[in-house]
Amino acid sequence: MPDDNVIYIGNKSVMSYVLAVVTQFNNGFDEVVIKARGRAISRAVDAAEVVKNKFMPGVEVKDLKIGTEQIQGEGGDKANVSSMEITMVTKA
Amino acid sequence: MPDDNVIYIGNKSVMSYVLAVVTQFNNGFDEVVIKARGRAISRAVDAAEVVKNKFMPGVEVKDLKIGTEQIQGEGGDKANVSSMEITMVTKA
Repeated sequence: MPDDNVIYIGNKSVMSYVLAVVTQFNNGFDEVVIKARGRAISRAVDAAEVVKNKFMPGVEVKDLKIGTEQIQGEGGDKANVSSMEITMVTKA
Repeated sequence: MPDDNVIYIGNKSVMSYVLAVVTQFNNGFDEVVIKARGRAISRAVDAAEVVKNKFMPGVEVKDLKIGTEQIQGEGGDKANVSSMEITMVTKA
């Protein structure tokens, strides 16, 4: 299954996403990507920090990316929204 | 004045911080650092993206960092808060 190591951050609690990331590492992935848009970006950083500092000291942040995505509004209008990707890997 | 090229993101509108960053580049700094904690992190990314995409095409993101800071609560208790630093530079 491609992209199965990608965790999309939504409106659930930070701990839901922490658990999702930890589960993917425990499933054997050595790289997990956390993706978020808009206000969920802060929660993505929270999740990455909690995984690293509290649950998986053997995991580190390999790469951070920010960008802008265009989303289609309800009325068909377009809006720009910031996005972020946090790539976490098991330390060599 | 040291650290004068650091913009701290608070609760103002994104455009306030965009203006602050643009002003610092126009003042002659070739590097400006945007810092944010907690929920302001999303706004920091918004500000960086707007500067880069709308106002200063000659500026790029050089470095991104995330971390955790300990803050003192009102009652003297300590809490962890996520932090982010976005370093923007004028392209060579």
